[in-house]
Amino acid sequence: MVSVGIVGGTGYTGAELLRLLAGHPDAHVDLITSRAEAGVRVDSLYPTLRGACDLSFEAPDAGRLAECDLVFFATPHGVAMELMPELIKRGTRVVDLSADFRLQDIGVWEDWYGQAHTCPELVEQAVYGLPEVNRDSIRDAQLVAAAGCYPTAIQLGFLPLLANELIDEASLIANAASGVSGAGRQAKIDNLLAELSDNFKAYGVGGHRHLPEIEQGLNLAAKQIVQLTFVPHLLPVIRGIHATLYGQIKQLGIDEQALQALYEQYYSAEPFVDVLPTGQLPQTRSVKGSNLCRIAITLPQKRNTVVICSAIDNLVKGASGQAIQCMNIMLGLNETAGLESVPLCP
Amino acid sequence: MVSVGIVGGTGYTGAELLRLLAGHPDAHVDLITSRAEAGVRVDSLYPTLRGACDLSFEAPDAGRLAECDLVFFATPHGVAMELMPELIKRGTRVVDLSADFRLQDIGVWEDWYGQAHTCPELVEQAVYGLPEVNRDSIRDAQLVAAAGCYPTAIQLGFLPLLANELIDEASLIANAASGVSGAGRQAKIDNLLAELSDNFKAYGVGGHRHLPEIEQGLNLAAKQIVQLTFVPHLLPVIRGIHATLYGQIKQLGIDEQALQALYEQYYSAEPFVDVLPTGQLPQTRSVKGSNLCRIAITLPQKRNTVVICSAIDNLVKGASGQAIQCMNIMLGLNETAGLESVPLCP
Amino acid sequence: MVSVGIVGGTGYTGAELLRLLAGHPDAHVDLITSRAEAGVRVDSLYPTLRGACDLSFEAPDAGRLAECDLVFFATPHGVAMELMPELIKRGTRVVDLSADFRLQDIGVWEDWYGQAHTCPELVEQAVYGLPEVNRDSIRDAQLVAAAGCYPTAIQLGFLPLLANELIDEASLIANAASGVSGAGRQAKIDNLLAELSDNFKAYGVGGHRHLPEIEQGLNLAAKQIVQLTFVPHLLPVIRGIHATLYGQIKQLGIDEQALQALYEQYYSAEPFVDVLPTGQLPQTRSVKGSNLCRIAITLPQKRNTVVICSAIDNLVKGASGQAIQCMNIMLGLNETAGLESVPLCP
Amino acid sequence: MVSVGIVGGTGYTGAELLRLLAGHPDAHVDLITSRAEAGVRVDSLYPTLRGACDLSFEAPDAGRLAECDLVFFATPHGVAMELMPELIKRGTRVVDLSADFRLQDIGVWEDWYGQAHTCPELVEQAVYGLPEVNRDSIRDAQLVAAAGCYPTAIQLGFLPLLANELIDEASLIANAASGVSGAGRQAKIDNLLAELSDNFKAYGVGGHRHLPEIEQGLNLAAKQIVQLTFVPHLLPVIRGIHATLYGQIKQLGIDEQALQALYEQYYSAEPFVDVLPTGQLPQTRSVKGSNLCRIAITLPQKRNTVVICSAIDNLVKGASGQAIQCMNIMLGLNETAGLESVPLCP
Repeated sequence: MVSVGIVGGTGYTGAELLRLLAGHPDAHVDLITSRAEAGVRVDSLYPTLRGACDLSFEAPDAGRLAECDLVFFATPHGVAMELMPELIKRGTRVVDLSADFRLQDIGVWEDWYGQAHTCPELVEQAVYGLPEVNRDSIRDAQLVAAAGCYPTAIQLGFLPLLANELIDEASLIANAASGVSGAGRQAKIDNLLAELSDNFKAYGVGGHRHLPEIEQGLNLAAKQIVQLTFVPHLLPVIRGIHATLYGQIKQLGIDEQALQALYEQYYSAEPFVDVLPTGQLPQTRSVKGSNLCRIAITLPQKRNTVVICSAIDNLVKGASGQAIQCMNIMLGLNETAGLESVPLCP
Repeated sequence: MVSVGIVGGTGYTGAELLRLLAGHPDAHVDLITSRAEAGVRVDSLYPTLRGACDLSFEAPDAGRLAECDLVFFATPHGVAMELMPELIKRGTRVVDLSADFRLQDIGVWEDWYGQAHTCPELVEQAVYGLPEVNRDSIRDAQLVAAAGCYPTAIQLGFLPLLANELIDEASLIANAASGVSGAGRQAKIDNLLAELSDNFKAYGVGGHRHLPEIEQGLNLAAKQIVQLTFVPHLLPVIRGIHATLYGQIKQLGIDEQALQALYEQYYSAEPFVDVLPTGQLPQTRSVKGSNLCRIAITLPQKRNTVVICSAIDNLVKGASGQAIQCMNIMLGLNETAGLESVPLCP
Repeated sequence: MVSVGIVGGTGYTGAELLRLLAGHPDAHVDLITSRAEAGVRVDSLYPTLRGACDLSFEAPDAGRLAECDLVFFATPHGVAMELMPELIKRGTRVVDLSADFRLQDIGVWEDWYGQAHTCPELVEQAVYGLPEVNRDSIRDAQLVAAAGCYPTAIQLGFLPLLANELIDEASLIANAASGVSGAGRQAKIDNLLAELSDNFKAYGVGGHRHLPEIEQGLNLAAKQIVQLTFVPHLLPVIRGIHATLYGQIKQLGIDEQALQALYEQYYSAEPFVDVLPTGQLPQTRSVKGSNLCRIAITLPQKRNTVVICSAIDNLVKGASGQAIQCMNIMLGLNETAGLESVPLCP
Repeated sequence: MVSVGIVGGTGYTGAELLRLLAGHPDAHVDLITSRAEAGVRVDSLYPTLRGACDLSFEAPDAGRLAECDLVFFATPHGVAMELMPELIKRGTRVVDLSADFRLQDIGVWEDWYGQAHTCPELVEQAVYGLPEVNRDSIRDAQLVAAAGCYPTAIQLGFLPLLANELIDEASLIANAASGVSGAGRQAKIDNLLAELSDNFKAYGVGGHRHLPEIEQGLNLAAKQIVQLTFVPHLLPVIRGIHATLYGQIKQLGIDEQALQALYEQYYSAEPFVDVLPTGQLPQTRSVKGSNLCRIAITLPQKRNTVVICSAIDNLVKGASGQAIQCMNIMLGLNETAGLESVPLCP
């Protein structure tokens, strides 16, 4: 049984780590921190966890955290980088669910997040936590920066095409929609049910913080600089990201059947990527509560624009599930341990 | 590993049996039937189950079913009673999720369901499947009629008061609300999202089929004839039943604290009934996807009317989870096996 | 064209006043105040009103307000009583949508609202704004305290029975459910879509501020002290209140048909109360956006407990529509002016 | 007061015609037909209309219909073309909300709708009912084929760019999402709340019947053949269409400010098209219940891909409101009559 600590456990990704780890056969949460809620029982904040979690929040303490086999950061951006140097020095292995260590270019990070990065030296050694791309580096990493929610759905959707140089790299489009839990457990008028229910809208059209993260990943896959237009939308649902991706086919004569075969082959060994058979499309509910990414590829009207649909649960494969998948790889556990439950449907 | 068969697997309770049994450590579904969908792969009807269920529906066959250690009926009312005599004769153990064997009074059943009962002789030997009431009888039963969704939430809420003769038996009120999955997977205009979303209504105020089932159970608990006013409502949510129960205290001077202690004591040994601490109230989401029933008791304004709130997931503790709990008891498995996952929240 | 001012226009009831008054043939909003948003265009806060409202918020000023024919207060409790004496002195006529002047017993008000009342002398002259009860007093009032949302749905449901002494006054039960807009436009975690969607719960079981308001109204109707158990619930919908009311019939032998006739007769002259024909039940969507209250009465199983279902739109008949109805009466306009639109359905 | 008839009034667009026309100052519905519901009161099928509509459905009769000043067809495709020749012969003016007369190319219509067209001779004289494009032709038309829901949102979004030859005509992308009322009031499992709520998915990626209608309109605007990739999605909301449109700028150096000015100018005289100021984005709720189309234009990252967001209420500007707008133009009424209500928000 490995011992796990969670820093910043009061948000939705913290609660989701607790939910998933409660069913993990080989890991146990021994420590969960929150400055604001120190002393409060976890199950009084999250009654869902009554009977499944007997901990109280405590104030973060590097010494206590360093005793764990692995520590998750489920904090807003800007927090993990403060505590990280101390933990890294002590040899603790860490999976950071926040954005602090995802971008290799410090200047880009500072531009998008509007603050100075306090430990740029650790960024270089951080491994980007998307197992379908980086499994081997994750295995040996001390610090893993788990991939974000939109970036996961979009990268997994585009990768096979870009890696095979099949689409124009300069005109990629990602039209994505997220459930509201992606905005976190924050008291904002914009996220009230009365504002969002029975409603739909785009947001951040002019620029969203996940854009540089996604382009960084796509650049690596394409081995060149790509240009992506990324438009996120807000869904009146709690969980789920659905990305509809568009690319212009470069290679004359490739048909839908060949693309289908390419995707099935590309992901044949991946336990959490499910390429749907021709004619089926993913739904956010068909991954709800699970670590799966379901993908479909279509070539409408046999024209030149390929359409990929990709769906994940933003709190699982887009956050806490992915972080646990990284942990499993890092600690030599079964990669799917604790992540095998069937999506909740209907 | 016990071998399980499911009759009528195309509805929501069938799919939920498959979801829950996919994670059961000691049981395996070997057979699932549907006349209408015979030959169709289960995961093409329920893509959620891709990777978790490799079966195809087959036409029901008593011989094949009798080879299973236990058979679930997840059929509309009126179907189980047709096939049941043959299975009972062959010695098969059965948990019926439908209403066919729940009412001991055949006349009452025939009145409410508008058809003749075809095997009244089996009704007598059927055991009512509410483990918190009937655990010992369930253990040895060949035929268990799993309790319905409203009846479970309402009986568990009223039992401690009635068993202790604390409230007036003639003026019980159960104001309950259900998610739409309770209406099943049927093509009806009334259940379209465009009809029910952003909406709320009572229905069946004049009379609902669950009334005689609930009163039968409450009569047994109270050891006398009770009178219940039961008003169901339809919620624009998928899963969940919330019952708000009202009773008139008979015993002078009993206070909220004593009632709280009574409930905690009454359910202290029950793995799936969670009496909330004073001041907390159940929410349907706090049991979503789980087999839990969460209950709170309040005595508003220190007056005479006691209010009990009770919440379950109608597809789990109100149907498939309860059926699996009965199976675990019948087959000598751990009662909580396959039913230990934490509710999905948010 | 009468000239209208609105104090505190940034909340949902303020926006709803603007929506309804935009279609009023005889009234025009000339002034809308908000300390926090002074200088901000109304349609930048509420883009819905682009093209329908050309005002900007301004800081409240008694002189400017007193120039209006009528002023609405759409403020949180505790605000109206501060500005009221000045306006009353100047002779301005006022409809207050908040709770400040609804309770005649100052002590009870101070207990439930946890603060001292700053102008108890005006409470006595305030007229309770429920036209179906108080139409004549409203006509001549200078200060009308518009009835609250739950109180409107519940009083309209119980009135005919209590006025005719048909039910036991000591065991009334009101089980009510409200859409989330009832909680106002406030940044609270509890009201996030991720917390409330696909969820249902009771709240305030131990005591809700609307209880004394409702009991005050029912006492007057019954001409004696009643006891009401009031349990509010929170619906995952934006608008709508549905009340399910229970009473114990006192008069032997009265049947459902007689009760139906009583209700139809009682409300026969009311433009906004719709007694549904036997067999129909109200839905919150069937009053959405309108000033209607739809009511149904049932006597289940021909037993002793009568069930009344009552539905309103909490922002219209439960707040802004009712306030406009009061204004119409006060200013001698057509009572239904500006309130005649058909509910939005589906 | 003009006299209006409605053929096929049992669906959502029929009910919406009734809702909107109930508030129309110059038009009155005198006749509504339904074969299936002949003899049934309209307000028993749509209780929302209690007090607002005193009609009963009657069987369709050309003679009776021909007495009306204008007849709306709110029927599924394939129905209007059966009755149309008789009405046209009698000189009746008609607005058809269905797809029967929208496509000028009969062969294309027959391919997509899978049946023979029974009166191709009337297609030629039918005018496409999108007032922003065709106002003058609509004025004098006898038969208007009101534009569809997706086609309205998408054409209004693309028109200014295509008319000014600013974007590449061969790589247009329309990523659109619709509320469920767009699927009509039909008993289908796919449209149950339990299937769609808390869920999101693309559908018809391989081909949707609105594609040829949209391309026909865009071809006319661009004065050349365009190629559009159109991917519709299904939202868990009742009303609303949101289209996110992508085009590749052809003209070097044009910036967002110039595009904004172009859109404001292009639609400056349109009563129902609202070009939002820079920085605002449309939401489906900000047009709910109204005939408005709100549009925003963005040039993310100052790159080459322009993004237009466009929102309408599918039942109003996407169906019944648009049809009434066409009627107003045809009959010389005020174009905005009956269509001036403010969107319902929140």
